[in-house]
Formats: sequence, C-alpha cells, structure tokens
Amino acid sequence: MFLYGGDYNPEQWKEEKEILGEDLRLMDEAHVNTVTLGVFAWSELEPREGEYDFSFFDETIDRLFQSGKKVILATPSGARPHWMADKYPEVLRTQENGLSLRFGGRHNHCYTSPVYREKVRAIDEQLARRYANHPAVIAWHISNEFSGECYCALCRDAFRRYLRSRYGSIGALNRAYWSKFWSHTYDDFSQIDPPGASGENSVPALVLDWRRFVTYQTVDFMKEEIAAVRKYATHLPVTTNMMPGYYGLDYQKFAEHLDIISWDNYPGWNAPEHLHEAAFSAFWHDFFRSLKGKAYYLMESAPGWVNWKQVNKLQRPGVNRMAALQAVAHGSESVLYFQWRASRGGTEKFHGAIVGHGGTSDTRVFREVSATGSALETLGEISGSQTAPARVAILFDWENMWALEGTRAFMQNKDYRAAVLSCYEALWQQAVACDIVHPHADLSRYSLVIAVWQYMTDKKTEENLTSYVERGGTLVAAGFLGMADENDLCHLGGFPGGTLKEVFGICNEETDALFPEERVALTWNGERYEAGGYCELLHLKGAQALGWYDSEFYAGMPCVTVHGYGRGRAYYQAFGVGGKFQKDFLGYLLAQCRIPFCLPDAQTLPDGVTAHRRIGEDAAYLFVENYSAQAQEVALPDGCVDLESKKSTRRLTVEPFDVRVFRCRR
Amino acid sequence: MFLYGGDYNPEQWKEEKEILGEDLRLMDEAHVNTVTLGVFAWSELEPREGEYDFSFFDETIDRLFQSGKKVILATPSGARPHWMADKYPEVLRTQENGLSLRFGGRHNHCYTSPVYREKVRAIDEQLARRYANHPAVIAWHISNEFSGECYCALCRDAFRRYLRSRYGSIGALNRAYWSKFWSHTYDDFSQIDPPGASGENSVPALVLDWRRFVTYQTVDFMKEEIAAVRKYATHLPVTTNMMPGYYGLDYQKFAEHLDIISWDNYPGWNAPEHLHEAAFSAFWHDFFRSLKGKAYYLMESAPGWVNWKQVNKLQRPGVNRMAALQAVAHGSESVLYFQWRASRGGTEKFHGAIVGHGGTSDTRVFREVSATGSALETLGEISGSQTAPARVAILFDWENMWALEGTRAFMQNKDYRAAVLSCYEALWQQAVACDIVHPHADLSRYSLVIAVWQYMTDKKTEENLTSYVERGGTLVAAGFLGMADENDLCHLGGFPGGTLKEVFGICNEETDALFPEERVALTWNGERYEAGGYCELLHLKGAQALGWYDSEFYAGMPCVTVHGYGRGRAYYQAFGVGGKFQKDFLGYLLAQCRIPFCLPDAQTLPDGVTAHRRIGEDAAYLFVENYSAQAQEVALPDGCVDLESKKSTRRLTVEPFDVRVFRCRR
Amino acid sequence: MFLYGGDYNPEQWKEEKEILGEDLRLMDEAHVNTVTLGVFAWSELEPREGEYDFSFFDETIDRLFQSGKKVILATPSGARPHWMADKYPEVLRTQENGLSLRFGGRHNHCYTSPVYREKVRAIDEQLARRYANHPAVIAWHISNEFSGECYCALCRDAFRRYLRSRYGSIGALNRAYWSKFWSHTYDDFSQIDPPGASGENSVPALVLDWRRFVTYQTVDFMKEEIAAVRKYATHLPVTTNMMPGYYGLDYQKFAEHLDIISWDNYPGWNAPEHLHEAAFSAFWHDFFRSLKGKAYYLMESAPGWVNWKQVNKLQRPGVNRMAALQAVAHGSESVLYFQWRASRGGTEKFHGAIVGHGGTSDTRVFREVSATGSALETLGEISGSQTAPARVAILFDWENMWALEGTRAFMQNKDYRAAVLSCYEALWQQAVACDIVHPHADLSRYSLVIAVWQYMTDKKTEENLTSYVERGGTLVAAGFLGMADENDLCHLGGFPGGTLKEVFGICNEETDALFPEERVALTWNGERYEAGGYCELLHLKGAQALGWYDSEFYAGMPCVTVHGYGRGRAYYQAFGVGGKFQKDFLGYLLAQCRIPFCLPDAQTLPDGVTAHRRIGEDAAYLFVENYSAQAQEVALPDGCVDLESKKSTRRLTVEPFDVRVFRCRR
Repeated sequence: MFLYGGDYNPEQWKEEKEILGEDLRLMDEAHVNTVTLGVFAWSELEPREGEYDFSFFDETIDRLFQSGKKVILATPSGARPHWMADKYPEVLRTQENGLSLRFGGRHNHCYTSPVYREKVRAIDEQLARRYANHPAVIAWHISNEFSGECYCALCRDAFRRYLRSRYGSIGALNRAYWSKFWSHTYDDFSQIDPPGASGENSVPALVLDWRRFVTYQTVDFMKEEIAAVRKYATHLPVTTNMMPGYYGLDYQKFAEHLDIISWDNYPGWNAPEHLHEAAFSAFWHDFFRSLKGKAYYLMESAPGWVNWKQVNKLQRPGVNRMAALQAVAHGSESVLYFQWRASRGGTEKFHGAIVGHGGTSDTRVFREVSATGSALETLGEISGSQTAPARVAILFDWENMWALEGTRAFMQNKDYRAAVLSCYEALWQQAVACDIVHPHADLSRYSLVIAVWQYMTDKKTEENLTSYVERGGTLVAAGFLGMADENDLCHLGGFPGGTLKEVFGICNEETDALFPEERVALTWNGERYEAGGYCELLHLKGAQALGWYDSEFYAGMPCVTVHGYGRGRAYYQAFGVGGKFQKDFLGYLLAQCRIPFCLPDAQTLPDGVTAHRRIGEDAAYLFVENYSAQAQEVALPDGCVDLESKKSTRRLTVEPFDVRVFRCRR
Repeated sequence: MFLYGGDYNPEQWKEEKEILGEDLRLMDEAHVNTVTLGVFAWSELEPREGEYDFSFFDETIDRLFQSGKKVILATPSGARPHWMADKYPEVLRTQENGLSLRFGGRHNHCYTSPVYREKVRAIDEQLARRYANHPAVIAWHISNEFSGECYCALCRDAFRRYLRSRYGSIGALNRAYWSKFWSHTYDDFSQIDPPGASGENSVPALVLDWRRFVTYQTVDFMKEEIAAVRKYATHLPVTTNMMPGYYGLDYQKFAEHLDIISWDNYPGWNAPEHLHEAAFSAFWHDFFRSLKGKAYYLMESAPGWVNWKQVNKLQRPGVNRMAALQAVAHGSESVLYFQWRASRGGTEKFHGAIVGHGGTSDTRVFREVSATGSALETLGEISGSQTAPARVAILFDWENMWALEGTRAFMQNKDYRAAVLSCYEALWQQAVACDIVHPHADLSRYSLVIAVWQYMTDKKTEENLTSYVERGGTLVAAGFLGMADENDLCHLGGFPGGTLKEVFGICNEETDALFPEERVALTWNGERYEAGGYCELLHLKGAQALGWYDSEFYAGMPCVTVHGYGRGRAYYQAFGVGGKFQKDFLGYLLAQCRIPFCLPDAQTLPDGVTAHRRIGEDAAYLFVENYSAQAQEVALPDGCVDLESKKSTRRLTVEPFDVRVFRCRR
Repeated sequence: MFLYGGDYNPEQWKEEKEILGEDLRLMDEAHVNTVTLGVFAWSELEPREGEYDFSFFDETIDRLFQSGKKVILATPSGARPHWMADKYPEVLRTQENGLSLRFGGRHNHCYTSPVYREKVRAIDEQLARRYANHPAVIAWHISNEFSGECYCALCRDAFRRYLRSRYGSIGALNRAYWSKFWSHTYDDFSQIDPPGASGENSVPALVLDWRRFVTYQTVDFMKEEIAAVRKYATHLPVTTNMMPGYYGLDYQKFAEHLDIISWDNYPGWNAPEHLHEAAFSAFWHDFFRSLKGKAYYLMESAPGWVNWKQVNKLQRPGVNRMAALQAVAHGSESVLYFQWRASRGGTEKFHGAIVGHGGTSDTRVFREVSATGSALETLGEISGSQTAPARVAILFDWENMWALEGTRAFMQNKDYRAAVLSCYEALWQQAVACDIVHPHADLSRYSLVIAVWQYMTDKKTEENLTSYVERGGTLVAAGFLGMADENDLCHLGGFPGGTLKEVFGICNEETDALFPEERVALTWNGERYEAGGYCELLHLKGAQALGWYDSEFYAGMPCVTVHGYGRGRAYYQAFGVGGKFQKDFLGYLLAQCRIPFCLPDAQTLPDGVTAHRRIGEDAAYLFVENYSAQAQEVALPDGCVDLESKKSTRRLTVEPFDVRVFRCRR
C-alpha cells in the first residue's frame, strides 16, 4: 500500500472542534491513509518550560488511529517556543556580521547550542516515550527541512575543533589552505573564523571546510535527535525531509544515519519551461532514491499551487496524478502533500492544500487528489517493488559543486547542478534508468558512468574512476575534469591530475570561456554542432580525437576524445554541456554500451515522454509518462496490461499530463 | 484669490542682504502672493539649546507682510539641530537590525522619544506665541513630509502598548495572529518585537499591526505639534504636506486632525509615458481632495525640473500652466512650488526653482511661472468654488494594500496602487468626476462604486458595501474580493467572505496567476478581450455571467458577472484590471448608471484630453485639459465663455499641454 | 633595456625546492630579466611579532642576482600577518555602519592606526637596511594597489583634524557646506562624522571632503613608507602600483611623492567591445605617463587570461605582444606581468601566469611571453627614449569627477570617465599624441586643450583656463562647464561661472536630460548629427554659433559655439559627448590647430589602427598598432625601417592584433 496523505496541523484548529471531525470524514473521501503530525508543534506540546501537554495529541492520534490512518510523527525542532528564545537567547542564530537574530520565522536556531540540543532531546524523548508504541505511528520525521547556519561563538569554537580534528596540525592546515598567499598563515587553530564578507573571504579551502562543517554539525544535531527518539522506539524508521537543490547541506552525508530517505518536491509543473521542470523533478527523484539505493518517501508536494514562487500558477488538470505517478515510477512508496488543510493565517495560508479555506470537498483540487488516491489504491500491488537496476550512473558531488562554483575562474556564474541536469535530461528523454551517485560509490554495477564538471578529484575519486575504467567500464567526462584536490589545491603537472591523465589520454592546456551569446562550431560524428559556455583546449596524449573545433583560433583542435584504458574506455567532452549534442552523444554511448531502454523506440520519443520500470517479485511494472500538453503516441513492448483499464495494447496514446501504468514481463 | 508661491528659505541667504531685497521685487514680478516659511529652520531659530533667536524671522515676516505676501508658517521638526542629536542621541532613529543612525539627512528622528517631542513642543509654542497673530501668517504647515519609522526601545515599548490596547489579551492576539503556525505563540505582550529581517518576518498580521502602529504614532506626534501651535493660534488652520504614493503611512488616518489637506506633486510630466503620469497626478489630486471632501492646497510642485529622478528632463513649454490649472480643476486653492530660489549648496541645489542660480527673471521658467501667476489672477473668481459632486467613487484602503501586497500568494509583485490607478485612468479618459474614498465611507451619494482588489474586508467594509448595494447602489469589484479579515485571517466558507457572497452571487474557487507575457482570451459584450495578470475561477451562485474565458482549461467559465441584490446590482470582474477592457467596461457601467460626463463626447475624447467642473455660487467653471503633445479638438456644451479670452465657442482647439477654463451654466 | 618579468612569490613554494630551481631556468627561457618580490610576504618575513626571518629572501635574491635578474622589492604592507590583527585589532578597518571587519582578504587595514604605521615602518626599515644595497634590487614597490577606507574612531578624528586645517573655523565650513539647508549647521568640528548611509548623506561638500581626506591619509601613509625605505636607500627609486579607473583615490595627488609611476593594466582585450577596451588601455597609459610627464612602468598585466571578470576569455594569439608593445609605444620602460607562476591555492590560483599549474614551458602562453621577451630585446635601443611631445591635452580632474557624479541632477548616472574616454578615443583613432592633465597644470605647451564635463571650476582652474586662451590657446569644452566651486557650491550669476563666461561668450540657462533611447537632431558644419544624454540650452553672449539643434522645443538654439578671447579661441559643445560627431569635431579642431599626426592618413585610418612615436637621441621610433582582428593596410612616412625585419616600406600591412615598430626620422 502506498502512503497517501500529507502534513496535518490540527493544533491550529483546536478551538474549532467541528473542523477536526470534518477532517477525518474528508480524509476518507480523499483516500488519505497517512498524515504527518507534529511539525512545528512545540509550543502546543510544551507551552511552558518543562510543562508538557500531550492531551490534544493523545486525542488526535487516537482518533486518527480509530479512523484507520497512519501517522508519521515529527519532532518539533524546526521552530522553538517563544519562552525558550527569551530565556536562552543563545538558541537563536548569529549572522556572519556578528549581529544576533531575534525570535522569528523558523529554522532560526543554532545547531551547536547545548541548551537547544538539551531542550530538543527532552521533548523528543517525551514524544518517543509516549507515542513510539502507538499503533498508528509508523515513522519518525526528524525536525523539518534542515537548513541554514550560525556564526555564534559556540559555532566558531566547534568549527575550530572540527578543523583541528581534520588537519591535526596548523601546519597541515596552512599547507592545505595555501595560506602563504596574501600572508594568511595561521599560527593557531584559535585564529580561525568562519569565512564571510566581514572577514576572510579569500581562502577557498576555508569556505569549503566551513560548508563541510555546517553539514557535519547539522548531521550531528540530527544524530542526537535520532538517538533521542530511538531511546523508546528502536523499531520505528527515522527520516528527515530534504529539499531538492538546497545548496548548503551535503545530503549525501545524511543518508547513512537515516532508515529511509524522504524529500519535498515543488517543481514548476506549470511554468513555461515545464518539460525541463519535469526532468528536474525526475532528477531529484533519482538522486534521493540513489542516496540509499532503495525505496523512499515523497514527503511533501503541492496538491494545488504553491504560494512562494514569483508567479504561482494553478496546477493544470491531470498534473496532480502525473506528479504522483512520477514519484511511484521513480521508486517512491508514498505520495504526501503539504498540506491537508490550508491554515487560516500565517505566511503560508495560501499554499495549496487538499482542503482550502472554503472547507469543502467540492473543489477541482480535492477531486483530483481523491482520484489520485483512488488510483494509488488500484496500483497498490506495485508497492514494495524496486525500480529496475540502473546501468548508467551520473556522478554528483556536493563538495565538488561548492569548490567549482566558488572558484574565481572561467566564468563567474558556474551552475554545476544545471550542468549535471543537462546530461541527466538527455538520458531522461531516452527512457533510460539512471542512478545519481557520489564519485566514491561502488561503480562496478554500471556500464556507463558520466562525470560532469568533476573539477575536484581527491585521491579516492581518482582511484575509483581509474579502477572503474580499468575493469572495463565506460566513463565519459565533460569539462573541468580533475583540476583540484579536496582542499581546492590545483593538481600540478597538467589537467586532469594524477592517473586520470593516463585514463583519458589527454591534457587540458587552457580553457576558453565564452560570452553568453557566443558559440563555437565543431564537428562530431560527421555532424556540425555548436558549443557554448566554454571550450577546453586539449592535447592528445594517447587518446583518439572523435570531434574537432571548427572555429576560433583553436579550430582543428580535438574537442571529443576517446581512450582505451585497461579493459574500459574513457570519453571526454571538452565544451559546454547541454543541447542537441548532449542527447546525440549520450545516445551514441548508450548504444555503444548496450544499455537497455524502457521502451522500444526510446531514442526517438516525442518531447516530454519518458518511461520507467519497477520490478516486483512476480511482475514488472512499466510507467509511460507524458509530461507534455499534447497527447502522444508510444509503442509498447509485448505483453503490457494497463493496471487500471486492464487492457493490453502495443500502440499507446498517452493523454496530455498523464501517466499510464502497465504490468509487464520481468 | 488662489495662493501662489512656494517654499522660501531666506535663512540660507542671511549673509547676502541684497538677495533678500531682490526676492521681494522678483516675487511681485512672478505674481507670487504666498510663501512657505520655516521648513527646516530649526538651527536658525534655536541655535543653542533653549536659546531662541527670532530676529531674522521677525524681520523677514514683516518685510513679506509689508510687501503684501501671505505666509504659511512651518514648524521646524522635519530636521533637528546638531546639538540636539549630540546631547540626546535617542532623538535619532534605530534601524531594524538594532544599529542606530547617526546625525544626518532629514526626518531621521524617533516619533516616540519624549525628549524629541518636548523639544518640538517648545519650539512650536515659541513660534505660535510669536507669530500666530501676525497678519501675514495664514496657516500652520506642521513638520514636513512625515515618513519613516524607528525601532528603538521606546518605539518597541510603544508598539507593545498599542497592541495591548488593540487586543486586550495575549490570547486574542494569538488567535488574530494564527500563531500556532510555526509555534509562534506569544505568552505575553512583552515578547513582541516589530517585524523585520532580523527577527519575525512570517506573521502577516504582525507586519500589518506594525504599519498601523507607525501611522498611529506619527499621527500622535503630529497631534502634539498641532496642540502646541494651537496653544496660541486657535484661529489658524493647520495642514501637513503629504506625498502621493508614499507607502508607509495611512494618510486616511491623518485627515480628521487637519483643517486643510495639502500635498506635494512631482509627476513625470515629461517622461515618455507622460499621459499616464498626468492620470497619476489627477488621481492623487482626487485622492487628497477626497480626504476631507473639500478644497485643499497643492503645497509643493516643480516650477522647472526636479533633481532626483533617474533622468530629470526640462518641463516642456506650457507644462507649468497645465500643471497649475490641473490642480485648480481638481479643487485646489493653491499652486505652490518647491522652491522660490535654488539653494547654492546641498543635495537639492539643482532642484528646479523659480529663481535659479543665475538670479534673474530672464529665464524661460520664470516667465512661465509669472504667466501662470497672472492667469491665476485672471481666474480668481473660481477660488472658493467647489468641484462638481462626484457620482462615482473608487475605494482606496491603505490597510488592504499592505495586507494584499504582503501576502505571499498569486504573484509576489502585486501593485495595488497601479491596479486602482488603471481603473481611475479609465474614468479620467471619459471626463467623469470621481472621488477616492475609504470602504468605510458614506457611499450613499454615489451611483457607482468601484472596489479594486478589495482583498481585506473587515466587518464594517462588508456591511457598508452590502448595505450600499441593498439600497440601490451599483458596485463593481475587480479581483481578490473579500479574502481576509482585518488581521489577514482568511474568511472561511468561500470567497468573497460573509454577506458579499450573497451580494455578488458568486464563489471564487481558485485563482490562476499568469506569467508576465501570458494572456487569456475572453469574451464580453460580444467582443474579444485579453486578460493578463491573473484569472479567478468563479462559480455562479445566483449571479448571471456577462463574460466568459475563451482559452485555458477554464474556457467557458464566467469571468464577468452581475447580480441583483436588494435594490442594487453587483458586478464582478474576475481578471487583471487595465487596458481596453477596463475603459469599455467602466464606460458601459457609467452609461448604465447614467453618470453625467463633463463634456458632450466624453466617451470618445482623444487620448490625453479630459475635463473637470467646479461649481461656484453664481456660475460653474469647466476646465478642458489637454495633456498630450498635440493640439486637440473638443466639443463644448452650450454657453461656455473662455475666462481668459472672453470668447465663447462650441468647438474648441486646445493647444498641446494647455488647459482652457470656461464660465458655464451651473 | 626594457624590464621584462613580473610578480614572483617563491615563498609559496618554499617547500618545493626543485620548483625554485626550475623557475630560474624557465625565466631565462622566457627572456625574463626582472621580478617583483615581496608583495604580501609579511608573514614570511616576520612570522612572529618582532622576529624577522630573512633567510629565504636572502637566498632568493642572491640566486636571482646570480642568474642576472633584477629585483623590484615590495614592502609587504598590502596584507598583514594574523598575529598582528589578533594583538592589535585596531589595525583592521571599521565599516561605515560602525561594525569592525575581522581578519581576512587584503588591504583591510586602517591607514590611520599608529600601531599599523609603526609595524609597517619597522618591517620597511628592516627590508631597506638589508636589501637597499643589494646589487639585484633596482626599485621599491611601496605596498600594493592602495585602496579602501576606514571609519574607525582614529580615522574620524583624523578627518576632523583635516577639516579644521582646511577650513580654519567651523563658520567657514558651514558656509562652504551650505549647512543652513536642512538645519545641518555644525557648532564644532567634533560633531563631524564621515558621510554615509548610517548618518549624513545629504551634504555633497562633506562627501567631497571625505574623499579628499581618504586620498590625503593614504598618501600620508605612503609617505611614511617611503621615508622608511629611504632611511637606508636614498638612491633607489620608489613607486607604487595604481589601478586604472579606481574611483576612490586621486592619483594625481600621489605623483609628486613617487620617483616613477607604475600601474596595473587588465583591459578586456578579448571582449566583444575590444577596440573600445584597447582605447581604454591607451587612455590609462597616457594618463599614468602624464602624471609625471615621463617614462613609467607597466607593473602588472595578464600573460594569459585573468580570473576575476564575469567571463574570462583566453587571450587570442598575438595579443600578448600587442599589449606589450602598446605599453612601450606609450612610454613604458617595462612590461611586467602578474604573475610568474600560478599559485596552487587561494583566490587567484586561476589568474593567468607565465608558468601554469602544468609547470612547463610547453604552452601557448609561455611561447608567446617568450617571443615578446625576445622582441623587447630586439627593440632594446628604444629604451630610454621619450614619447613624442603631445600638443593636445585632455583635462582630468578627480575632484570634479567626485563632485559631478555625486550631484543629484540631470541624470543620476553620470560617468565622467566614460565621457573623457569618448573624447580621447576620437583622438586615438586619428593617431595623435595626447596628454591627460589636471586643470591646474601648465597648459602652455599645448595647442589644443579639451575640457570634458568640467563642472567644478575653482579659482585656479578658472584662471588657468582663462589665461591659456588669452595667450593664444584653443580650448574646447563639452558639457556642464563651470557650474560649481571647489565645495560644490553653485557659481551664482549664470553658468559657466566667473571669467569663463567671457572666455566662451555664452550662458547656459538650463539643461535638458534625455532618456536613454532619446536623440535630438542637430546640424554642424553642414551635416546632421544626433545628440544623446543631455542638451544644454545656451544663450550667445558674444560667441558665434557653429551648430544648432534641429528638434525639440529648443530647435534653432545654438549647440556648438566659438568665441575669440585674447589671442585664443574657446569652443563649446552643448550636448552629450561621443560618436561620429566627436570624431568629426575634434578632427576639425586638430586641423584648425595644425596638430601633427603620427601617420600620413591619420584622419582616415581603419577602425582599430593607430600609431605613436617615441623620440630617442639619435632616432625616432614609430609604432603602428592594429588592435582589430583583421589585417589592415597603412601608409607610412618616408624612411621607416622595421626594427625587427630590418625592411623599409611605404605601404604596410599590419597583421591582426599586431604592432610594428620602425626607426624613422626624428
């Protein structure tokens, strides 16, 4: 059974008893079976310091259980009660400029503060003791959308301890920071402050370490919360809801501490560039699934509009179902919304909700949500199956992103995620299963690995990629490969550094950056293409050229290369990713590597159409997805039976914004 | 007699005696009869604490009187002497981030500070005692362009007291603030801080109350100043000069404390979009006249260019007269300029002045000012008459603006004033008299009331609008009607909330926001139009559809409706205001309501031409205004005699940038 | 011999001994003969307070000397060691808002701090004592790129002392500041704070004085450094490296304290608007040469790309040589790069370097640098010659720039340097030698002087320009002439103020500012042109009109005038500078004044081609420069012999991005 439902904040309606009753009735009508309870409920649960009041939660959870609902129970640490900020101002954050924040908003707390950690532990333990064994409760939702950073004295000290433990000696740190530059040599760890506009902003490795520390400290905070709830609830899985594209935290470091990954998805389904947004959403589904390589939860999504974009469009008819089935296609075991009922006041009161301010089920949104819930029940047999194993992986590396984007060079605006997404989108258009993995991951299961802008290659990345090719893998790298180590120190002796030079058989002498409108002509595989963004000037050191620049002073120089290394091959693309070249080139590599497609005509699908497979014990399931606003025709493999209509077909017409699901051969 | 003249700062020229003499001679040449004296003169009047020196003012006012000039006397509280900031730093403002401002600029004072209030009261009383009975002095000009806000401890305390008095109990405030959201519950009023980026920025009702408080506190400050000058001058009227489009103060709250309204008008007469700017200027004339529903003063305007726009163009020939007569057409009893003589230094030294740095009357600007002064003398009989009573009103509601623009929903950039102005402009193009009134105002005198984006409807607004229609009025509402109450809590049970649902016979289920270039086709009255901005999806609950969407998934849904209620009718426009539709639709309603136009062919006037009427005891006066750069032909009613040329005509050619004034039948 | 080489930071590679040896070998291969040593080396030289360690520098300088290299030795004050900031936090800067900066970046020090000055003096004296007489050392490089400002209590006090000494009495300051405006009268110097957003930002003369003070204090700091190094090294010349277009410091005030001028040049050679960038570079070469009117050093330039532009393009083939020979053509005695070897870490690690991270000479950049070095050796006989004396001067006045750009009037965005450059570019396209001088400079050597936007005319400027014309000079002024005095007080009695009114025989009544796309037609010399930006409305007071506006309400008014005064003539251009008019008009004046051109067909050269001359004792040298991407044909004077090919020619084809150098007749 798929979990279906969303965030529920009945404490906001405590004084309107009739609404709480109405909620249960409407949930049934909407096929909702699960709610997330307790996010931001701290002032309800502990109205005065040490005085807990669980009466309303007791009653609510019992009623939910009696009505057959499951509860994902949140710890309330995403926002703290006012009394705490008043009595212990140190729980609030300090800004980079040294000024403290006042009470307000949410997520405005210091992750280091011992007082805050103590208060969080206490309430978490109370919750766990009381509800861990309640039959309604199925999982812990730790805090909410971890984010942000604090520059208080406690955090500064913790940062220094972190560095001491990372480097051991200040001399080692000075070497890593190349601190002779501009006389920035440190004499002692106590001199180190977080980077920022009011202080040090010229040491890239310091910036990098600060970002690492923020992740480290946030994870450390989360681990304390996990320990607190596990004190009484070792059997319940823990998760925390992550945000696609949040820049400040390395989610890959969170995964090992969580039992199940969950995330919040708010793409611009209805924006002019909606096909690109669908790919964006697909990418993050794959990213989060890949974090643990197994089923995950879609923890939040919009049942209607959202309220915080520049332009908040309505969701077109069908988009609700389409988004839900995309999640399932990518391996989610849940479709959960923010939120059940629109709040009456507050900054998110117009965020789309299943039940709006009108309070009725007689709305387009409610009807669509209800129909999707019904469909998920029909598709229930898919729950528990896994996505088809991917034979292609794209590397994603948070630290590399921080390092490359922070590097003053080439062009100032370097968007690593956009570059990775460009490559991903080229695969997505060809209905190929894909994992998104860290460069240190075990790559042996993949036939094709794609490294986009892998600027930072530490020893382990270098060895992992080298050995992957050596053992027979196909590795394609696009841009900025192997320029710096884990401290953003440039590799000496030519790029890419270390053994990657031999793997790829090339050397990058220099990189031309292009102005936004500028294009450079090139030829690959007998066809003309255009490069934008940047053009690397390569020398062949064993590699064979497959493509050449046709314009600029480097006309005739190679821009696509291949090199045999060990039992594998390493391809290099020397210029900006994206566009028609990317699809053609990756399509060519997919064919070379004999990667299986999910559909017969995968390489010539109409724009906006793709497909995914899940594999159950007895059957496989094919999802054929149409993200475009037009009906599209697609050929299916033999033996596909539509799980809803029960019909089988070879030639399928998918309606605009629809997903069809088939039982098919394993 | 119309007051004619402007701001005069002779204290800047105290050491150039010959210039002061020259001023009086040039004033006569310019037909100037009135000056505003004393704005920013505090350091002249009280050079050291408690040491007053009125000698220069004594002499100046006497000389002005002897030369036949009237004096509007300003209190000097718009800027304080340096000694005061040094001795009492608390008179200066504190910023939201907690950092204090230093001495500088103007208007940089805390309106709460007891010391500042005491110092202001003392100088005001001194001025009043000395000059209240001087025969030259005709009015008090309280301070200057009130604006800004302060976050010091005193202001924070005053804010808390304001809230305590507004809500009575912290529980009531918590309910109004929906503070369970994100655990923001307050335990006590002492916990409340002003909203801002360093603290609480997620409670819309707090933001709203802070804005209310800033108005309240500024008015309170102003009331103390008024009391101070009235101590010796109960017979003199008081005014303060307001700014069109200033966002931070609810001017509608100022009106009751003032004897006469005055304002400062600096439209972009010479910008590419100058016709729109003329309508903008007309709107604010009507807004300020409507504040007390009677004659007012144009306190500041530019005799030439201004110095603070991005591009400061010269005023084209004729614009000086045109702007002056626009003011008179809308009901002003004065045409006053900033400034008489250009200052030699300081940040406004290049602000246009009647007498420039050349110091002579031999300039284009001086000649135009002088001609306008002469024309106003010719038109003197109009002074004292009232504008023709308007039968159309547009609602304007500062608190609604704050609430709606601050709401995170629909589109982030919501410009309430631009929306109201779009509707106003459609009337202005049809030469219809119009009032701009608060939704609580007595509407019984109007045949047509226009409610643009009336998102916030408190009980009184709801009742007032309901009863207006019930008693036979025609109400047209455009967009976002009745979504929230006075605390920005959403009305439950469907929009518009409360009895307005019955008045309009519609229910708004959801609202689609459009991207900037996006348009949705619609049909009304047999014609095709395009909607931009947003499209509300309405259900008819008794209303009749007059228009329908033609595109998007809501094609066929109603977008213009009418509903009979009581003895009146309520129209609703579900999509973005402005453009051709607005003129056609309001023109249709004007005709339906048999609203009188000021000109025979009012609905087909050339672009940029409009007209206004004033009604005297014996005669009426018709102003035919041409804001365009082309000569325009206009048909006149019977019996119009040009007050300047003494000719009568039926078919008038108005020169570019000219206004012609006629005596005509009442 | 031309100095050839650049910044060298071997202390970064102290632990890689082999790299230091490799450096010397590669320097020879690159024809490098000079390095700049010690910039930012403080923590190397004084690792702990008072503990100096010169061992590495001793060894390095000796090795450089043994290998035949010259050393320009830098004082290390551009960045301070961490221990200093820890022990003496007052050495760090305070921001305008009162918050202190923390350690970080570079140039973050208070120029007033006695501790900082003492520490700098001590290290400077140590360096001087140790190395002043080392045979390798040829000059002192004082600090690095002076810039920035500090608002600490010490700086505020110093500012007050500066003002006291400038004005003598607070009354004089009040008059100069026109402080009656907005009641800003000061009672005492102690009340004065630097201007800024947190305090006073409405007194233009205060802003101006603050900028003057920042220059004054920085020069004062520099003078202390110069005194420190001269203690042991009176024979060595001192310089400091300046930045083209740095806004905050009046470099004209630095010149008298330096023995030789040097500067850092990073134009956008490869940007789309590269011809304009070449003119920009030429302008600043002339500016810096004119500072002392003699040979200077190009201290920094890019051997390849830079790393800090929005888009960092590669330098096209040939651009390295072209840029180097441009410097020599304008009078430089050096071509120095930043930097010798790319640093491995830090914020500038990707700044172009002669030796990149690959570490080899087998790169395009290295080969081009080496070829340029070789060419400079071939051209060595030119070293020591002077540029041909200019008979044209353009005025440049930092204080005028600050005053005019800060004035709220006309258009808010006024770019003085762009306006001056527009005029310069018109000359540069005609191969005319040009000096850039302060309006107080001796102008007697010039036949034509160009005053662009000379808004501020103090008594000395007024007298200097007046006497220049009186004695027979031709003066052309374009825009905003003579509106304010040195305190930004407007001249009374009409613009231009004072005797300039008689010199030009005109009076400017008012100035129309144009919107960006707006153009006004005009006729001059029988041809139609278009004016943009602004149009001044002039009255002839003796001058003769040469051009007239053809559109707008001022059609028919004069816009180009000439007036005979004394033995000279004064021309006035009343509208925006730049474009075709500027080239035609200045070309006409060059012909009128019989200014010699460097090439026979100078007035019809292809775009991007220009020429310069240097005059040696026995011969003259002609540089024919082609900054365009196309080969260009140019006619040469008789008797030119190419110094490299040894061939003589009359008709020359210059390759794209090339400069050819000829020995020719004096």
